Amino acid sequence: MNSLEDILVYVKKIFEDQNFDKQPLTLYEPFRYTLALGGKRLRPLLVMLAADMFSADLKKAENAAVAVELAHNFTLLHDDIMDASPLRRGKPTVYQKFGTDKAILSGDVMYAKAYEYLLKCDTDKVPALVKTLTTVLIQVCEGQAYDMDFETRSDVTKREYITMISLKTAVLLAASLKMGALIADADAESMNYLSEFGLYLGIAFQLQDDILDCWSDLNEFGKVIGSDIVDNKKTILFLTAVEKADDDDAKELISWYLEKTNDFQKKKQRVIELFEKYGVRDDVEQMIGQYTIKAIDALDKINVEESRKENLRTLAKQLTSRKK
Amino acid sequence: MNSLEDILVYVKKIFEDQNFDKQPLTLYEPFRYTLALGGKRLRPLLVMLAADMFSADLKKAENAAVAVELAHNFTLLHDDIMDASPLRRGKPTVYQKFGTDKAILSGDVMYAKAYEYLLKCDTDKVPALVKTLTTVLIQVCEGQAYDMDFETRSDVTKREYITMISLKTAVLLAASLKMGALIADADAESMNYLSEFGLYLGIAFQLQDDILDCWSDLNEFGKVIGSDIVDNKKTILFLTAVEKADDDDAKELISWYLEKTNDFQKKKQRVIELFEKYGVRDDVEQMIGQYTIKAIDALDKINVEESRKENLRTLAKQLTSRKK
Repeated sequence: MNSLEDILVYVKKIFEDQNFDKQPLTLYEPFRYTLALGGKRLRPLLVMLAADMFSADLKKAENAAVAVELAHNFTLLHDDIMDASPLRRGKPTVYQKFGTDKAILSGDVMYAKAYEYLLKCDTDKVPALVKTLTTVLIQVCEGQAYDMDFETRSDVTKREYITMISLKTAVLLAASLKMGALIADADAESMNYLSEFGLYLGIAFQLQDDILDCWSDLNEFGKVIGSDIVDNKKTILFLTAVEKADDDDAKELISWYLEKTNDFQKKKQRVIELFEKYGVRDDVEQMIGQYTIKAIDALDKINVEESRKENLRTLAKQLTSRKK
Repeated sequence: MNSLEDILVYVKKIFEDQNFDKQPLTLYEPFRYTLALGGKRLRPLLVMLAADMFSADLKKAENAAVAVELAHNFTLLHDDIMDASPLRRGKPTVYQKFGTDKAILSGDVMYAKAYEYLLKCDTDKVPALVKTLTTVLIQVCEGQAYDMDFETRSDVTKREYITMISLKTAVLLAASLKMGALIADADAESMNYLSEFGLYLGIAFQLQDDILDCWSDLNEFGKVIGSDIVDNKKTILFLTAVEKADDDDAKELISWYLEKTNDFQKKKQRVIELFEKYGVRDDVEQMIGQYTIKAIDALDKINVEESRKENLRTLAKQLTSRKK
């Protein structure tokens, strides 16, 4: 078994070794730009950690690790267009830097390349790996569609929100773990518990992201602070605040999310004030704690030695208390 | 062996039987709209014709037929955004009707669904089918990137143009045939000749499309006439005309493709006049004839009874003399 740090170093190295220096430049320059931005490499890390937990040769999991990162970046390239996000990992987003057309097309080829990498895995594993990636990408698209719908809906519930972030974010974390387990020939039951772990961890991860959108340091976070508020994203913070607020404050909050103001600073400031007045950060941190417990419960049930679960346990702690 | 007409009826029926009536609507409404527009269903037809030529049970090829049509429509949804095309099959394009964001996202899910359909094929065929689709979609993205590049380049050669349309259009026709042959367990040599047939036929098909862009009836063609000219697409007509024209006319042609005019009617009229002055339509029809001969040569070499090639022979004739 390898240490968490060693595996992360290994994962980062894999990406340095890939060569996407291809023609036409129009297509592969935004592609390389995206991958060079780095990021946490969380999804490939999960592939590797799962493979390692079930004692697989890490080399065998490398291509699947690249595949999930490409698939993830494909969704980011397109989401950033739809959300009009100016920054990603502290740098201009692809659509901002290269234009919408190139961001669409580079995203498309990135998605195809994800399958190309999966096809390099052992042939007998290919159908199950392709199925896992395909199912999850359909879910991610559905999640993104709900996310866009929610921006204009006024009756979004917390339950709907959790479903949306499960689809948009958590299922890909679960699928990354599942792919690692598939490559390691894990038993079906363990694979299911591992997916469950990934799903709950993914929900906790996204709720933490919602908190970071309001309370974090731009230099660490790499995205514009309060952009969820500007985009009228009805995150868990908003939904909890509306639930807890008195009538006047609830009305004010809702009106900020309806209004077409251009004074974004004032909007962000006032909304965060209201979030703080009702202590919603504590509520959401409590939720994160609950989902983390559910994740750990699932991890506990997996049929491998306790010591082999240590890396995922540590990662779960790191992710749900992260600052970026 | 089935008749060409019967197989086309069969193909159209497959699409009527698919149910994409799913949630969220944001995602699946543009999806259904696209498929309901119909179109020639050429790519699924090619899957079926290839399977039929090698005596496969057509039922076994149905899912691959749906997959290639979904993959093709995915590329159309995104290309129409990049090319700002208002019409497709005589109706508003998805991005025009539903907006860019929904066109991006519906295209994405359509691509994922293509793999979902491939996964329904016999498991032992899945790796080869996924590989065929993946390779071709990377090529299609590369072709689309070259196509966009060519709009602003002034030194595009005919050879580069043929490479671009091979990538953007012809390889998907070749891949559709190959998938049908894969499902029918055709021998490798025949499969290669069949792909070659598809490639040359695809080039001829696209050259015919270039002609139809200038000389056809909107009601039959379903796209805006002269849109290649408006978009400064350096089609084979333009490249041939510049080659044949005297200095003054060549300069005029080139300047029309550089100028940012808003008088599109005048631009189209004058460019087509120059195309006609130099008889480029005849040249291109000759090229179409040559590529069709190459296609038929490849078909001749395929290792099945002559009579089983009849449908593809007929289709090749129909496609390269079509009016829409």
